[in-house]
Amino acid sequence: MATELVHDIAHLGHVELLTPTPERSLWFFTEVMGMSVVSTEGDSVYLRTWDDYERHSLVLTAHGSSGIRRTALRASSEEALKRRVAAIEQAGLGIGWTEGRPGIGDTYVFTDPDGHELELYYASEWYTAPEDQQPALKNQPQRYPGKGVSPRRLDHVNFLAAQVGPNGDFVRDVLGARITEQILLEDTERTRYGARWLSFGNKSYDVVYTEDWTGTRGRLHHIAFATDTREDILRAADIMLENGVFIETGPHKHAIQQTFFLYVYEPGGNRIELCNPNTRLILAPDWRTVTWTEAERAKGQAWGLKTIESFHTHGTPPVG
Amino acid sequence: MATELVHDIAHLGHVELLTPTPERSLWFFTEVMGMSVVSTEGDSVYLRTWDDYERHSLVLTAHGSSGIRRTALRASSEEALKRRVAAIEQAGLGIGWTEGRPGIGDTYVFTDPDGHELELYYASEWYTAPEDQQPALKNQPQRYPGKGVSPRRLDHVNFLAAQVGPNGDFVRDVLGARITEQILLEDTERTRYGARWLSFGNKSYDVVYTEDWTGTRGRLHHIAFATDTREDILRAADIMLENGVFIETGPHKHAIQQTFFLYVYEPGGNRIELCNPNTRLILAPDWRTVTWTEAERAKGQAWGLKTIESFHTHGTPPVG
Amino acid sequence: MATELVHDIAHLGHVELLTPTPERSLWFFTEVMGMSVVSTEGDSVYLRTWDDYERHSLVLTAHGSSGIRRTALRASSEEALKRRVAAIEQAGLGIGWTEGRPGIGDTYVFTDPDGHELELYYASEWYTAPEDQQPALKNQPQRYPGKGVSPRRLDHVNFLAAQVGPNGDFVRDVLGARITEQILLEDTERTRYGARWLSFGNKSYDVVYTEDWTGTRGRLHHIAFATDTREDILRAADIMLENGVFIETGPHKHAIQQTFFLYVYEPGGNRIELCNPNTRLILAPDWRTVTWTEAERAKGQAWGLKTIESFHTHGTPPVG
Amino acid sequence: MATELVHDIAHLGHVELLTPTPERSLWFFTEVMGMSVVSTEGDSVYLRTWDDYERHSLVLTAHGSSGIRRTALRASSEEALKRRVAAIEQAGLGIGWTEGRPGIGDTYVFTDPDGHELELYYASEWYTAPEDQQPALKNQPQRYPGKGVSPRRLDHVNFLAAQVGPNGDFVRDVLGARITEQILLEDTERTRYGARWLSFGNKSYDVVYTEDWTGTRGRLHHIAFATDTREDILRAADIMLENGVFIETGPHKHAIQQTFFLYVYEPGGNRIELCNPNTRLILAPDWRTVTWTEAERAKGQAWGLKTIESFHTHGTPPVG
Repeated sequence: MATELVHDIAHLGHVELLTPTPERSLWFFTEVMGMSVVSTEGDSVYLRTWDDYERHSLVLTAHGSSGIRRTALRASSEEALKRRVAAIEQAGLGIGWTEGRPGIGDTYVFTDPDGHELELYYASEWYTAPEDQQPALKNQPQRYPGKGVSPRRLDHVNFLAAQVGPNGDFVRDVLGARITEQILLEDTERTRYGARWLSFGNKSYDVVYTEDWTGTRGRLHHIAFATDTREDILRAADIMLENGVFIETGPHKHAIQQTFFLYVYEPGGNRIELCNPNTRLILAPDWRTVTWTEAERAKGQAWGLKTIESFHTHGTPPVG
Repeated sequence: MATELVHDIAHLGHVELLTPTPERSLWFFTEVMGMSVVSTEGDSVYLRTWDDYERHSLVLTAHGSSGIRRTALRASSEEALKRRVAAIEQAGLGIGWTEGRPGIGDTYVFTDPDGHELELYYASEWYTAPEDQQPALKNQPQRYPGKGVSPRRLDHVNFLAAQVGPNGDFVRDVLGARITEQILLEDTERTRYGARWLSFGNKSYDVVYTEDWTGTRGRLHHIAFATDTREDILRAADIMLENGVFIETGPHKHAIQQTFFLYVYEPGGNRIELCNPNTRLILAPDWRTVTWTEAERAKGQAWGLKTIESFHTHGTPPVG
Repeated sequence: MATELVHDIAHLGHVELLTPTPERSLWFFTEVMGMSVVSTEGDSVYLRTWDDYERHSLVLTAHGSSGIRRTALRASSEEALKRRVAAIEQAGLGIGWTEGRPGIGDTYVFTDPDGHELELYYASEWYTAPEDQQPALKNQPQRYPGKGVSPRRLDHVNFLAAQVGPNGDFVRDVLGARITEQILLEDTERTRYGARWLSFGNKSYDVVYTEDWTGTRGRLHHIAFATDTREDILRAADIMLENGVFIETGPHKHAIQQTFFLYVYEPGGNRIELCNPNTRLILAPDWRTVTWTEAERAKGQAWGLKTIESFHTHGTPPVG
Repeated sequence: MATELVHDIAHLGHVELLTPTPERSLWFFTEVMGMSVVSTEGDSVYLRTWDDYERHSLVLTAHGSSGIRRTALRASSEEALKRRVAAIEQAGLGIGWTEGRPGIGDTYVFTDPDGHELELYYASEWYTAPEDQQPALKNQPQRYPGKGVSPRRLDHVNFLAAQVGPNGDFVRDVLGARITEQILLEDTERTRYGARWLSFGNKSYDVVYTEDWTGTRGRLHHIAFATDTREDILRAADIMLENGVFIETGPHKHAIQQTFFLYVYEPGGNRIELCNPNTRLILAPDWRTVTWTEAERAKGQAWGLKTIESFHTHGTPPVG
């Protein structure tokens, strides 16, 4: 059955990531990833990728542990924002309006059923590059850094959840996404998903839920940054190697969604993915959710790499 | 000023291309491009790229001259189809309903102000690959051919028009696209565009209008196929060279839209582009049209290649 | 200590591979790899890669089992050929002169200490492409096929040997290669190498010996074909997947020699590597052999992939 | 007719480049190219690429004008050095022994017939990376910088010469190279070459002579640095664009030698090429010089790009 698109959420805006090692994490995002600092406020550093039209892509906050504090989604219009807030309130998961971060207007905070904090906003100042960051081409917000990995954009967030099903339902039904692919586990007692991939537009996914084998709620599996090419990811692997950044698995191609990937842990412990989808897009308005069985999943990744064991256990903050 | 998205048109569906040399053109699309034949009906051969979820991407029709007969757009739903047909009829450019091609349901035919024929449909059978074309991964409609250029999808259509402005307005206002980039020419008498790029979703463009210096109406500048990587386009250039296919210009990177490109003429004379956008997408719901001046345009392509002269004169069918 | 180059061996010429499934193996080399058939003689099919200046790169021979029958090396001149034959005879490993294969002149057959059969020749007819294989550029022997993997050349042979040390010594001392890298195992009783990589010119290796854990003699670990880019290898992985060819491991980057690799089994059971060295070359005339310890080796490949277990056990022909 | 290899010259060692804008040129080589500084002595800065096993690849010297002061070649052994010095002295082009640069032993200085200064040495200290430049893999001399273009090595030098023929003869006959490709011009009075490409080993060329249309002697056409991939060169074009470095032509593929190229001018005016040969090597010991006619050359580069006019006129130092 096709899931339909509501188009009220335009895209993933930015995330706030927590780190117990703020200096080392900042080194990772600036020197290894090649992102630039927009501002520092209190315990938080605001960072951006070079093709983000908004002010920032990542808020890095010093904290007692790792994890994700909040995930921001941009609505498609003021009306779309109101519609979604109403839907969230009806679902009983609203928290309330806040002032918004620098460059961002009124923001509505809520949680998903698993307890991950999200926020929704529409008003957003477009980024204007300072003199030394002016791009050569005017259809690009900031110059290409040519340093470290230099990803184009924050691409998606993958949450761990005690139960995947209700969270996927929430993002689909309340936020208006569609489920492009999912893993259906063998379970005689209930419908149980290993993971579900959700999309707000033509990207094949923007938000993912993966089952947390520890049964904990509200944890992060990873955040992902998109590179322009698969070669960028091969180079990124060299850069991680030279910088002593832990490579968990990859580069390889996912069977699900066919994304080319590399997974590393930033110094604070959060898993970071570098991903490249080639030019794959979901254009069909009546896209049919692709459901993978446990047996299909057991075949591993596209070219045969076994899914790494830590993929099911490592999340942030760590547990037990 | 931001142009807003209506989302009633989901994507470019397929095009009907005319060729005076049907055998040679078919050789080009199957042996050089690596596309596969779905069926042959009368003077038309139905062809497809490997990642098209619909039945076909290209209808190649034997004809007295080259050119494009019709461009098909898929609506987002039955309701969206009705809404757009009403808008087209109100604009006075409707022709009427037809039965639709194989695999496609009821179809509404109309023209743009310049006279290019278009069609709009919603009902569409999903492609089921025959036994020998079954893909290894179930989230892909057909196996990757690994032969010739092997592009992923039909990407966009670029029309020549006697006047660019009104055609861009029509696609924006009547079909519900947004203008992502455009060239504004110096003209003391009227607002005159050299070209306008229009998008229905997150792709940076789906339809383009370029000024026809001959003043003729209804001609084709090119149709474009998207490859997964820029390397695919470098390889494509080798393949064109080995097969004696005329390379007009490229590979290089466009300044406008930043697309990596290669332009060739298929044996029937129609210009074919191979394009790769890296992972660039238009995610901003309030995207601000990028307007290039004549002076900016005169700088040539992104890395300095001068725009080739034939770009302004070669169209199909040829004129005088 | 630097190993010096004698330059009497110019390069690896071709190999004769044995297969118990000749039809399926031929399908693999022509349809999946995109190599072309030069001739068929008796039980053997002569095949070539597109950038081989000689007549053929691979002789595929129907046989009761898999494995490598013979490896051919081209001498640098008639005098170099004579010098090496004298050295081989002095080493007591000569077999004698034969007539040579089609396109190849007088050939001297011998074995390495482990019993692998090799041959040495100088006279070699340059390949002339038939009409339908004429390249567009005259500095290329044959047109680029644009079909399947389309590797540029046969790159190297990796032999399994009961004892690696003496075989590496033989190729270095008797044939005049240098050992560019090697693995030194921990062994309290004797100097024992896990593997040694030998080079005749600027390529970082042409012949490799790897320890056969089964203690068998004369077996093949793999033959390797070089592609132009790493992207070619990522594409090759897709092509293998679509064609149901078993992928053993990769794509990934070797720590030793830094080669980007993909290992598959052709239908006859022989392991085939697709390799890409980027532009790495051994230019130093006083190159210092890089020796890896067992502990260093235990770290796995460059980006952390564990060396696959079958790498130490799968060879052809199979044993017990 | 095949030209044979003597193997007395191992490879191009380093070059001394002159610049009238030393600060800007140093910015180019460190910030844009991503090379690292080894030392500064007087008016010269010693720089290196990350995969150079020797101490330095480039000596950048402040001077009244641009150009190349000296090109250093490393001999294959002390004996090879003596043999070549004897041959040079016999040719009457020797200048004499000098002490050698930092890290380099006794060095013999001479000129080619056109007057370009060259030097020959054997003794060379291997580079040892400081703590912060230690590579992760021990078969690499220095860590991969991941900054700017980051080329692997200095690849070749292309000299302008009033007459190409005698200079190619000199490098072939006196230094022991072979001519892998050349352009033979139409001239009724004498044998006249447009350019000749010479190789000392398996690389397809190390030194090139191109005819100087101004008739001046001793000028530089360009020096070239090799990148690992063609993608690296596409990225380099973006980096040049962002940094305001003048791109003369490319990226494109040369018909001759099939090298993928990008030409820029460093701020001092010297032309710099970024080149990638894919995995093409000259392995044939009896390689047959490929001779291109003027008519063949007129077709332009491999994929049709016309050879840029400044290619025949821009050299350093500039003339009248």
